Amino acid sequence: MTETQPQTWVDGAAGSLYDVDNLPYAVVTTGDEPAQVGVRIGEQVLDLGAAARALRPAWTPLLGVDRLNPLLAAGAATWAEVRAWVVDLLTDPGRRDQVRLLPLADVACRLPFEVADYVDYYASEHHATNVGRIFRPDGAALLPNWKHLPVGYHGRAGSIVVSGTPVHRPAGQRKAPTEDLPSYGPSRRLDIEAELGFVVGRSVPLGTRVATAEFADTVFGVAGVNDWSARDIQAWEYVPLGPHLAKSFATSISAWVTPLAALEPARVPLPGQDVPVLQYLREEGPSGYDIEVEVELNGTVVARPPYRSMYWSPAQMLAHLTVNGASLRVGDLYASGTISGPDKDQRGSFLELSWGGREPFVAGGAERTFLEDGDEVVLRYTAPGARGRIGLGEVRGRILPTS
Amino acid sequence: MTETQPQTWVDGAAGSLYDVDNLPYAVVTTGDEPAQVGVRIGEQVLDLGAAARALRPAWTPLLGVDRLNPLLAAGAATWAEVRAWVVDLLTDPGRRDQVRLLPLADVACRLPFEVADYVDYYASEHHATNVGRIFRPDGAALLPNWKHLPVGYHGRAGSIVVSGTPVHRPAGQRKAPTEDLPSYGPSRRLDIEAELGFVVGRSVPLGTRVATAEFADTVFGVAGVNDWSARDIQAWEYVPLGPHLAKSFATSISAWVTPLAALEPARVPLPGQDVPVLQYLREEGPSGYDIEVEVELNGTVVARPPYRSMYWSPAQMLAHLTVNGASLRVGDLYASGTISGPDKDQRGSFLELSWGGREPFVAGGAERTFLEDGDEVVLRYTAPGARGRIGLGEVRGRILPTS
Repeated sequence: MTETQPQTWVDGAAGSLYDVDNLPYAVVTTGDEPAQVGVRIGEQVLDLGAAARALRPAWTPLLGVDRLNPLLAAGAATWAEVRAWVVDLLTDPGRRDQVRLLPLADVACRLPFEVADYVDYYASEHHATNVGRIFRPDGAALLPNWKHLPVGYHGRAGSIVVSGTPVHRPAGQRKAPTEDLPSYGPSRRLDIEAELGFVVGRSVPLGTRVATAEFADTVFGVAGVNDWSARDIQAWEYVPLGPHLAKSFATSISAWVTPLAALEPARVPLPGQDVPVLQYLREEGPSGYDIEVEVELNGTVVARPPYRSMYWSPAQMLAHLTVNGASLRVGDLYASGTISGPDKDQRGSFLELSWGGREPFVAGGAERTFLEDGDEVVLRYTAPGARGRIGLGEVRGRILPTS
Repeated sequence: MTETQPQTWVDGAAGSLYDVDNLPYAVVTTGDEPAQVGVRIGEQVLDLGAAARALRPAWTPLLGVDRLNPLLAAGAATWAEVRAWVVDLLTDPGRRDQVRLLPLADVACRLPFEVADYVDYYASEHHATNVGRIFRPDGAALLPNWKHLPVGYHGRAGSIVVSGTPVHRPAGQRKAPTEDLPSYGPSRRLDIEAELGFVVGRSVPLGTRVATAEFADTVFGVAGVNDWSARDIQAWEYVPLGPHLAKSFATSISAWVTPLAALEPARVPLPGQDVPVLQYLREEGPSGYDIEVEVELNGTVVARPPYRSMYWSPAQMLAHLTVNGASLRVGDLYASGTISGPDKDQRGSFLELSWGGREPFVAGGAERTFLEDGDEVVLRYTAPGARGRIGLGEVRGRILPTS
C-alpha cells in the first residue's frame, strides 16, 4: 500500500486555495460568542477554541482566546504541534462530529494579534528606484546606503486595523513645490502600499542579536499589509526624520496569518544582491518567497506585484532589526515595504503606477492617479503550496471622506 | 483663623523636592511583594496599593497593580480625586497609622507604565539649529518645514527601559564620510538626548483629532527621557526614512511620572513662534513648562538644558500627532526631542556639547566627546511647584560594552 496524502473531509476544501496545506489562523467571532482562534479550511472556519476546550484543554489558553499572541508566544515546536493537530482534525473523518465549522460568511474577523512594535522596510529595489526617480529625477535613484542595509523605520502600531475596516482620508499639512506656504486640509495624494508583513512569535531581550538562521524560529507567519500613505503630507514632513503623519493614520493587515510552514514550497532564491553584504546579513539557502499579489481597485486588478522580486529577504530584515541589540516582543510586526516588480503593471503603489500623478493609469475604464473617496482597494495574496496554490487572505479597505 | 496649607506628617518631606505639592507616581517593589503603585514623599514611598486595599477598595484595580495604565485610563476627574486623596493621606496626622511608607532606598522601581506607541519630536529650535549647522554647515540650519509643524517620528516602544537599566553599546553599520564602504562594529559616537516625555492617559479612536485645548484631559503627566543615540549609525542609515537602529537599542525613562497637576506653577509662555501656525496648532495661555534639566556625566554636571526654551509646546505636539486621525492609546508616550537652550552649557546632547566631536568638552577634568564604556549619565529634572521647587526624578544609565 502506498502512502497518499490524506484528504480533508470538509466539503469543497480539497483543491481550493484553502486546503490542508494552507491553514491560516485568524481571530473570529460569530453572533454573540466571544472571539476565538479559527483556522480557515475552504469556505469554512474551524472553531479552534471550541476544539481545544473539547479535545485538548491544555491548549485552551492558546486557542480559546481573542488574539493570536499566546499561540505566537508558545514557540516553534508548539506551532508545529498545533498545525499537525489541525491537519488531523480536518482529515480524519472520525473528527467530523467532534469539531465545529463556521461558514466563513457568518464570522467577523478581529485584528488577529495585538501588535507590539511595527517596523516598515523599503526592501524592493524596483520600488525604491521608482520613488527615487520620481522624487529626485536629477539624482541617483538609490541612495548610497540602500544596497548595504535594509532601510526601515518604525510605524504606528496603534493605528493598525484589520482588513475591512474603512479608512478615513487623513488631513494635515500639505505644501506643493509651487506653493509658498503649507495649508491644512484632506490629503490630495492618498495612496496604497502593497506589502507583506512578518509576525514575530518570540521575545528576545535587549542586547541580543537574532541571526538570519533564526528566522523560522522567530517569525510565526505572514500577513498582507496595505500601508496607506498620504504622499503630499509625506513630501512636506519627511525631512529629516522620515515619514510620520503620512503613514500613521491607518495601516491595514489581513485577518489571516499564514504560518511559515505553509509557505515552505514558496521559498525561492532572492533575485540577487550585487553588492556584498556584511556578515550579519549573510544567509544560506533560498530566502525569498514566491508570493503573488493582486492589487484591485473598485473591482479591477490594476497591478500584480511579485514578492519574489524583493531585494532583501525577511531573514535579513529580522537580523538587521536586532543587530543593534533591540529587543523583540511577541506580536512585533515588520513589513517589507511596497512590493514592486520590474514591469509597469507590477508596481505596488499608485505613486508608481501613475508616475507621481503625471501618467494616469486606467482602472475600470477610468483614468486614475491617487485614491478618491469611496474607492475600495483589495490586496490578494497567493503562493505555491504543498498541493497547489494557497491563498493568504486579503487586505480590504474603503476610503471614507475626512472625518 | 486664616487658612494655611496643610503640612505633611512625613519626616523630612516638608520643604523638600518631594513635598505634597509634587507627589509623582511610580511602580515599586520591595522584597518579594508584588509590584504596586507608589507615590514619592520626601525620601519615602507611600504604598498606594496597600492604602487602596485598606481604605479605598474601589481603587485597588487602579493602584494595587504593577503598572500605571489603569490609573491613566481612569481619566482626568479620577486623576484629581486620587491626588486629593493622597494629599489627605499624607497631611492628616490621623492617617499616619493607616498607611505604609517604604524607605526609597528599599524599593526597586519598574517601568512605570506599559508603553503603547512612542513618538519622538524635535521641538527645540536651538537643538535643531545646532544639528543642522553640524551636519549641513553650508546649508540652511533649519529645514523649510521646521517652523510650520513639530517634526517627529515613531521610535521603538519595546526598547524603552526604566532609569537604572544598563545600556549595551549598540553595534551596527557605520560609514564615515572618508570611508568607501560601511563596516560593522560597536558605535563610536554614542550619545545621549536629554528630553521630556508626555504620558497619554486617554484612548481616542481613529479619525478623531485632539485639540490643543484637550491637552490636560489627555496627558496624565511627564517623565524624564534619555533617547540614547548612535550618531555614526544614524548618519549612515537615516536617509530617506529617518532614524531606526541609531535609536531603537534603548530609550531610558524616569521611574517617576509627575502629574501635570504638580506642574501647574511651572507653566510659562513659549519663547515665541515667529512664523504663524495653522489653526489646529493655535492655543490659549502659557503652554510651555519651566523645567530645568541637569545632565550629569560620571558625577559632573556638563549641561543644564532649560525646557522653557522649547519652540513647540506639548499641546501642539499632541494636536499634531492626531491631526491626521491617528488614534491614541492609554500609555502612548511622546517626547520633546533633545532639550537645548541658547547657551553652550545648555545643550542636551554630546553631539552639540562637542560640536560634532570636533570641540571636546571637559567633564571631571577629562576632555570628552562621545560616551565611553562604563560612563554613567544621570538626567535630573526640577521645576517650580506650589510650595517650592519640585523634583521629577532622574534618568540614570550606565554604558556597558557591546554584548
